Amino acid sequence: MEFQFLGTSAGTPTRRRNVSALALRSEGARHWALVDCGEGTQHRILRTPWSLNDLRAVFVTHLHGDHCYGLPGLLASAAMMNRTAPLVLAGPAPLRAFLEGVMATTGLGLPYALDFVEVGGTAASALPDHVMPDLAVAATALSHRVPSFGYTFTERRLERKLDPARLQAAGVARGAAWGRLQRGEDVVLPDGRPVRADDVLAPPRKARRVIVAGDNDRPELLLEEARSAEVLVHEATYTDEVLCRIGPGPQHSSARMTAAAAAAAGVPNLVLTHFSPRYQQHGALAMADLEEEARAAYGGRLFLANDFDRFQLDRDGVLHRLEDDAGKAGPAPAGAQAQR
Amino acid sequence: MEFQFLGTSAGTPTRRRNVSALALRSEGARHWALVDCGEGTQHRILRTPWSLNDLRAVFVTHLHGDHCYGLPGLLASAAMMNRTAPLVLAGPAPLRAFLEGVMATTGLGLPYALDFVEVGGTAASALPDHVMPDLAVAATALSHRVPSFGYTFTERRLERKLDPARLQAAGVARGAAWGRLQRGEDVVLPDGRPVRADDVLAPPRKARRVIVAGDNDRPELLLEEARSAEVLVHEATYTDEVLCRIGPGPQHSSARMTAAAAAAAGVPNLVLTHFSPRYQQHGALAMADLEEEARAAYGGRLFLANDFDRFQLDRDGVLHRLEDDAGKAGPAPAGAQAQR
Repeated sequence: MEFQFLGTSAGTPTRRRNVSALALRSEGARHWALVDCGEGTQHRILRTPWSLNDLRAVFVTHLHGDHCYGLPGLLASAAMMNRTAPLVLAGPAPLRAFLEGVMATTGLGLPYALDFVEVGGTAASALPDHVMPDLAVAATALSHRVPSFGYTFTERRLERKLDPARLQAAGVARGAAWGRLQRGEDVVLPDGRPVRADDVLAPPRKARRVIVAGDNDRPELLLEEARSAEVLVHEATYTDEVLCRIGPGPQHSSARMTAAAAAAAGVPNLVLTHFSPRYQQHGALAMADLEEEARAAYGGRLFLANDFDRFQLDRDGVLHRLEDDAGKAGPAPAGAQAQR
Repeated sequence: MEFQFLGTSAGTPTRRRNVSALALRSEGARHWALVDCGEGTQHRILRTPWSLNDLRAVFVTHLHGDHCYGLPGLLASAAMMNRTAPLVLAGPAPLRAFLEGVMATTGLGLPYALDFVEVGGTAASALPDHVMPDLAVAATALSHRVPSFGYTFTERRLERKLDPARLQAAGVARGAAWGRLQRGEDVVLPDGRPVRADDVLAPPRKARRVIVAGDNDRPELLLEEARSAEVLVHEATYTDEVLCRIGPGPQHSSARMTAAAAAAAGVPNLVLTHFSPRYQQHGALAMADLEEEARAAYGGRLFLANDFDRFQLDRDGVLHRLEDDAGKAGPAPAGAQAQR
C-alpha cells in the first residue's frame, strides 16, 4: 500500500504546506482514493502522477473548509477532462448539502455521476464493498467541533502461494492444475478427484491496514482500530504547551496525545500531520518541538509528514518514506506553477 | 493605478497559470480590491505583498467555479488572521446564496461582517460610494452562460495643482494661503477678499480608468465604457480557429474579437487573460497564436497577462508591465510552496 500527502497544514495554507489531502492506493492498483480535499488539492495533484480519471472515491473526514473546499474545483476539473466514471463521495451528511448547494449556485453540471455514501454513527462501521473494490473501508467516529471520522483501509485481495506440503498431501502432481489452484480456482484432477484451492494454498498473510484520521481531540477513540493496523495517520496540531494556552475549544490533539494513543494501541508506524502554521514560521516554535514531544511518548517508527511525501507500507508492515519522489521530480521544476 | 494578475487560466488551473483573480488598487492606497477569486487565490496572495487584512472588497464577475471557488477559503483564512473590518462582496445574485450555503454546511463563522452588494441589470450601473472610497466602481452587463459583468474602476480623488496665471489674476500673493488653496480649501485674504480654491487650481487631470471584464462573448458591450478608459482587461480564451471548431456554446471571446472591440473603442492599453489550457501545453497551439491574432486587429499597447505580472498605469495613461516583480522576488523562492 502507498500514500502521498498533498497537504499537511492546519486551517490555512502556508508557503510550504497546503491544507489537508492525502492520496492512497493498494499495491499495483490503478484506482486510488483521496482522503480530504482542502482548497488547492487539484493544484497539488497537477504536480504528481495521480490522475483525476483514475480517482475512485473521495473520503471526507469532516466538513471544515480546510478539508473540503477543494472538492468543487476538483469535480469541475474532472468534468473538463471528460470523466464519465461515477465518483464515490463518502463523508458525514453535510457533504452532500455542501456540494449540491455549490453546484446549484455556480451552474456546475457534471458528465459523471456522484455516488454519495453517508458515514455516521459512533462505532466503526463498514462502507459498502463497491466503494473501493480492492480495499475494505470502515469509518470510526472521532471527537471534533463537527462530526469527524477516521477511515480504515484494509487490503481486500491478498495474493496466496501454493503450499508444497499441502500439494503433496493432496496428491497434486506438477502440471496445469497448479496454475489454476494458485489463482484460487478449484480443479478436478485427471483421475477424477476434486481439489479445493483453499486446501492447497498457504494461509494468506495478514491484510495490511492503514488508518487516516480526521481532526480529533480524543485519539484514544481509534485504539480498537489501531490495534490491528500497521499505520496510523493522525493530526498533531500543536504541542501540549500551545494546546494548554489555547484551551480545548478547537478540539485538536497535541503531538503527545496522539503519540500516547498510538503507543497504547501498539501501532508500529505513526505519521503525524495537520500542523498549525505557527510551527512553520521562523520563531520560537518549530516542527522539532512537535517531533520531540511525540518521540518522548512513542517508540515506534515516527514520521512528521511534509507535502508531497510519499510512503510505502511493505508486506512486513514496515512503513518507508520514499526518497525518490515522483511528486517532486517531474519533467517540470516543482516550483513552475509559481513562476512564469 | 496598479494591478497584479493572480490567475490567468480559463476553466482549470495548469502548472503555470491559476484560475482567475486580479488584485487592484489606486496609487498609494493601502486598501485594495480583488476581482474574481478562483480556487487557490489565497495561495497566490501568500506569494505577493497583498495582505488579506487590507482587502477592502471582492468583485466577482460571474458565478462560475473558476472565478469564485477560492472565496470560501479566503474568507476563512482572513477570519483566522482575526480580521474585524467588514468586507464588501459585490457580484451577481447567486454570490450570496453560494457563500451562505457554504458557510452553513461547513460551519464557517466569521469575526467580521460581509457587506453584499448585488450587481444586476443590463446597463452600466454605479456601485455605492462606500464600496471603494478612493475608486468609483461601475458594473456593465456582459454576455455569458450565466450573468457576467465587467467592472470599471475610476480614480475618485485627483490631486490638483495651483495655476500661477490664475493665482496672479486673483491677486493672491505667495504665502500661507497657497498651501490651503492647494489642498482645496477656500480662503479669505488679509485684505478681506474671499478666494475659492476652484478658481485658482488648474483643471484636474483626467481620472484614470481601468475596466476588468468577466467572461463574455460580446466584447462590443464594453464599447461605451472603454471609450473613456485607459485600460481594458478582457478574456481571450481562444483563437478564432479554435472558437469556430468548438462553436459558440461556451460563450467566450477569441483574441481577434476582443482586439477588434478594443480597437473600435480606441482604448490605448489592452491586457488579454483567461487563456484556454490548450495554449499552455506543448503542442500545435501556442500563446504566440493568440498574440498574433490580437496584434493583427489592434494597434495599441497589447499585453498577454501571466500569473504574478504586475502592471502600473501612469498619469499619462501609459500602462507598464513592471519587471521588478515583488510577487516573484520575495524572501522565499517562488517555488517554495511546491517543495519541502
